[in-house]
Amino acid sequence: MAEDPLVVFLPSGRRGRFSVGTGVLDTARLLGVGIDSICGGRGLCGRCQIEVSEGEFPKFDITSRVGHLSPPGELEAEFAAREGLAAGRRLGCACRISGDAVIDVPAESLLHRQIVRKEAEHRAVEIDRVVRLHYVEMAPPSIEDQRSDLERLQAALEAQWGIEQTRLDNRLLPILPALLRESDWKITVALRENRDIIALRPGFHDRAYGLAIDLGTTTIAAHLNDLETGEVVAAAGVMNPQIRFGEDLISRVSFIQRNPDDAGELTRVAHAALAELAEETARMAGIEAADILELTIVGNSIMHHILLGIDPLQLGQAPFPLAVDRDLTIKATELDIGTVDPGARVYVLPCIAGHVGADTAGVLLAEAPHKDDAIFLVIDVGTNAEIVLGNKHRLLACSSPTGPAFEGAQISCGQRAALGAIERVRIDPETLAPRFRVIGCELWSDDPGFEQAITGFGVSGICGSGIIEAVAEMYIAGLLDKRGLIDGAQWPGNPHLIPDGEVFGYQLRGGNTPITVTQTDVRNIQLAKAALYAGARLLMDKLEVDTPDRIVLAGAFGSFIDPRHAMVLGMIPDCPLDRVRAAGNAAGTGARIALLNRTARAEIAELTRTVEKVETAAHASFQKSFVAAIGIPHGKHEFVHLAAALERPEEAAPERKTG
Amino acid sequence: MAEDPLVVFLPSGRRGRFSVGTGVLDTARLLGVGIDSICGGRGLCGRCQIEVSEGEFPKFDITSRVGHLSPPGELEAEFAAREGLAAGRRLGCACRISGDAVIDVPAESLLHRQIVRKEAEHRAVEIDRVVRLHYVEMAPPSIEDQRSDLERLQAALEAQWGIEQTRLDNRLLPILPALLRESDWKITVALRENRDIIALRPGFHDRAYGLAIDLGTTTIAAHLNDLETGEVVAAAGVMNPQIRFGEDLISRVSFIQRNPDDAGELTRVAHAALAELAEETARMAGIEAADILELTIVGNSIMHHILLGIDPLQLGQAPFPLAVDRDLTIKATELDIGTVDPGARVYVLPCIAGHVGADTAGVLLAEAPHKDDAIFLVIDVGTNAEIVLGNKHRLLACSSPTGPAFEGAQISCGQRAALGAIERVRIDPETLAPRFRVIGCELWSDDPGFEQAITGFGVSGICGSGIIEAVAEMYIAGLLDKRGLIDGAQWPGNPHLIPDGEVFGYQLRGGNTPITVTQTDVRNIQLAKAALYAGARLLMDKLEVDTPDRIVLAGAFGSFIDPRHAMVLGMIPDCPLDRVRAAGNAAGTGARIALLNRTARAEIAELTRTVEKVETAAHASFQKSFVAAIGIPHGKHEFVHLAAALERPEEAAPERKTG
Repeated sequence: MAEDPLVVFLPSGRRGRFSVGTGVLDTARLLGVGIDSICGGRGLCGRCQIEVSEGEFPKFDITSRVGHLSPPGELEAEFAAREGLAAGRRLGCACRISGDAVIDVPAESLLHRQIVRKEAEHRAVEIDRVVRLHYVEMAPPSIEDQRSDLERLQAALEAQWGIEQTRLDNRLLPILPALLRESDWKITVALRENRDIIALRPGFHDRAYGLAIDLGTTTIAAHLNDLETGEVVAAAGVMNPQIRFGEDLISRVSFIQRNPDDAGELTRVAHAALAELAEETARMAGIEAADILELTIVGNSIMHHILLGIDPLQLGQAPFPLAVDRDLTIKATELDIGTVDPGARVYVLPCIAGHVGADTAGVLLAEAPHKDDAIFLVIDVGTNAEIVLGNKHRLLACSSPTGPAFEGAQISCGQRAALGAIERVRIDPETLAPRFRVIGCELWSDDPGFEQAITGFGVSGICGSGIIEAVAEMYIAGLLDKRGLIDGAQWPGNPHLIPDGEVFGYQLRGGNTPITVTQTDVRNIQLAKAALYAGARLLMDKLEVDTPDRIVLAGAFGSFIDPRHAMVLGMIPDCPLDRVRAAGNAAGTGARIALLNRTARAEIAELTRTVEKVETAAHASFQKSFVAAIGIPHGKHEFVHLAAALERPEEAAPERKTG
Repeated sequence: MAEDPLVVFLPSGRRGRFSVGTGVLDTARLLGVGIDSICGGRGLCGRCQIEVSEGEFPKFDITSRVGHLSPPGELEAEFAAREGLAAGRRLGCACRISGDAVIDVPAESLLHRQIVRKEAEHRAVEIDRVVRLHYVEMAPPSIEDQRSDLERLQAALEAQWGIEQTRLDNRLLPILPALLRESDWKITVALRENRDIIALRPGFHDRAYGLAIDLGTTTIAAHLNDLETGEVVAAAGVMNPQIRFGEDLISRVSFIQRNPDDAGELTRVAHAALAELAEETARMAGIEAADILELTIVGNSIMHHILLGIDPLQLGQAPFPLAVDRDLTIKATELDIGTVDPGARVYVLPCIAGHVGADTAGVLLAEAPHKDDAIFLVIDVGTNAEIVLGNKHRLLACSSPTGPAFEGAQISCGQRAALGAIERVRIDPETLAPRFRVIGCELWSDDPGFEQAITGFGVSGICGSGIIEAVAEMYIAGLLDKRGLIDGAQWPGNPHLIPDGEVFGYQLRGGNTPITVTQTDVRNIQLAKAALYAGARLLMDKLEVDTPDRIVLAGAFGSFIDPRHAMVLGMIPDCPLDRVRAAGNAAGTGARIALLNRTARAEIAELTRTVEKVETAAHASFQKSFVAAIGIPHGKHEFVHLAAALERPEEAAPERKTG
């Protein structure tokens, strides 16, 4: 008797012998090759496309000519006519083994495929779907087979997909009988966590979308993802409507403190914004918002609590206990997100500690220090700095009370990063003449045409990245001493130095609305950066690390700050500059990873439990480091390598998008 | 070294040696003696009361005098002063081992105690709580211990009660922080299934109630139970408000068919009735409806589907498939039962088949044929007869299309069992003179004062039990032949026989609104009883059983029908009369068992899956048995034993409560 044909799948290399006539999908399943499918092998979805390799494959002990599959039949011809089928492609569900075969599974046909992240990121996201679509067909009830509608559906999922012990959302019970009958017993089931039937669609349906949300204090960003392919199909952002109750976190918490009866209003406007974002991204992508079946949310602890309707007051006072830290799954209807499918769930990432929120959990998922040997220092700056240090062996987290100076608050001419805000600053060390750029204009202030370009908005103030650059440049130019004093006496009569009692201010722009960096501004930045540094130092001391292997600056702050200026000021510990990286919206990326990958959820839930929480207020060494860090650490000659780096073309600076 | 003291618990006899000073509750836990507690050993709840036996116990190898426990201290004195403590009683949580001791655990202190059912029932219900109260105390957060509020609560449940992996209802998240702080970190948790935190109460709280509901077509009955003690503390019933959409099931289904847009209204009025019953029973018991933490519901398939908002139309036409048959747990808020605690869950018992509903599941729980060697025939008659046959080895179920004749419908003078309806009938075999009783009056119609007693409502018609007795008595009197023909020619000129074309009617009462049993009425009862018998016969043939060991007549029908009359007519198979039992509201009892006992839920869910469903319409033998059963089976001489029994004093007849 001749041996059964040998079947080899690429790229996995899995192989086995199967009798002639075995379906290709069956051979794949038996060999553990995960090939995608929605329709369950009925030639409807086209997810199981494969290619057959021609030629000889001595390395697989195949010396005969291979490529032996049953010739294309009606099913494939129909699919090709309807949806198109590239040359060489076959539907795995439609072809059968007819001899030795080497079968190539393209990346997009793999069940657990990786998608490469588009942003400046270093790791691909693997898809491991939380919600999957399964098309099933059932025989209608008869006197001989009187099983209940639900039992019939469950049996179909078991027989056609091997999925046992499913359960139907109670909400769908009233819909089930009519839906089954109107769709002639052919429906598509949206199954969550391989267990919960959360949505039903008549007939074959292949649209399933998910929304990853970064609920920021200032802006709420949403990425709409195709849950089947993992692709981002639309992105949108809105201002956080809570802003009308207070610009920053502290003022919102204090609003709630003063108006406890209106606290629910902050929750309601956040929910409404999420519902709007779902609609807007759906419209952009040309889909129905009702096809959104899953959402994930990250946000700092206070945003997290307000989202869930939890009074955040405890987070505003020692000992800052969270009401809840573990990850949560909530029905979208419970958060009044009525635009998405009513069966959709919202996965809220876990918080780590009182001021180390679900946004940091998202950053950890995106940056994955817990999978690395290198010691990461991850810094996310908002009203507080959320700091994580460590690697796969141990992770520490703390929050450091930087205050809102880095966000432009507590600065005399400070403002939020918005149109007209100074965001970059250079100072001529000879003349002290400033040059700057403002948000909304690509020209520097000394470029010809600058004034014309800013017509309509003007120069309205200075934002976080601008004030940091300004102070650092003031030091580099020799205008500040190591204690942070503006040494105006050195530069008698300099037009940029404005006497202010016994001290001086440094004027970036004159005119009717002058922009000046005052001595108090410098002091406030020193206090903020000292707190940030002392937090990092505390963790480094705990971990007995002197220099982290990598520094990751997360969030808006990290994207727009120049790491060299940050290092000049001593905001962040010294580290080779090529090891310092702005991670962009890493929290949002974490939300997207959690949206696309089930395992990532278990991973972050476990990780946040094991991260060691360090309370800065409980450590005397924090106070010591803080005081020691108020000055500027680098002598002029110590940062030659930094100064040299500063001479790079300005074009290489990070670009801020406006509008 | 002397041996540690020996501790023996009665009545279990569990024993062990423990060092002096060990707490009695600890010894009980270590020996697996389940002693009740809400307060977790703080002397608040008094659930852990024990007694110490004095004397010598040679059978336990205790020859010394026993009774060695630490003397009563402050905790017990305070409890005794506050709540009272019977002589000889100790609080298990407050006393410690000081020498050999024989400790008696009274029944009411046992965690899994049995409560004896009050009704005519043969089995006690064991309490195995679905919802339990656990009092916990926590340390407030500090800089050194910044665990989240939820984590703190979960840790307290683990440390103080050994319960791990609890989870909080999302709904309680916003409430948690303020509740913990306002109650000084001392709260009582209502824990469901040892896992879900469904309600929180400040401080020590020992009130937890559950509502067992029998959702009948005509009436909705509710029993309010103390979930801690298992006692029924209030009972109430209301007319099913769906009656305004149709008196019986068929007319309600046809209402929905004609008015599909109003179908939701039947669901809404049922939900509203449940909410009212919760309030009413709570008021009767002097508790808050918000202390109702769990509900259970039984009902026939159509009531079950309408309750859940499922269109019942499929149940009205072959092949009668249920939308769902397995048991369901639904939040009370999802059924709009807003009066109970918003965390309360409703457990809906499973259905068995299209017309063998959750009411039959309740009957099975109450009667437990699946635990018996004897072959049970359980019959519940409504619009359809729901029939179960079998024992612990095998159970079969079917529904037989009796039609509504047994409910008084399709009978010329028929009516629902209500005030003024004839419910019992006797016929003098010599004169054919009838005597009867009506609902709402304890006198027989030939008793002096009868007419006066019924002033205000009169004799309005004949209900199910009345028509069955009437037809049986007509046969016993020789007025009917075995085919069911009213043999009027035999009794020329008899005033009770009313000619009607070629046939006769038998008049029970004359006057302005005469009540007559017509030949068509007799025929309709024959068809109904033949269907009932044929259903039972089909199951008996399948199980190869000729005489069941026990017949259980469940529901209102079973309670008011006289089994002798039923047997004369051949409604039910022959069986020694002392083996025929009316089970009362066994379905309601089943709801109560499911309310008090977790295991019973798993048991009935499993049982309904294993019951073999037999479809009468699919069996030709059913049609044959049906035709054969239309006549009256017993020749006059064959039922001497039955006739003799009929001479019993009428007072022994079942009493129907009115008002």
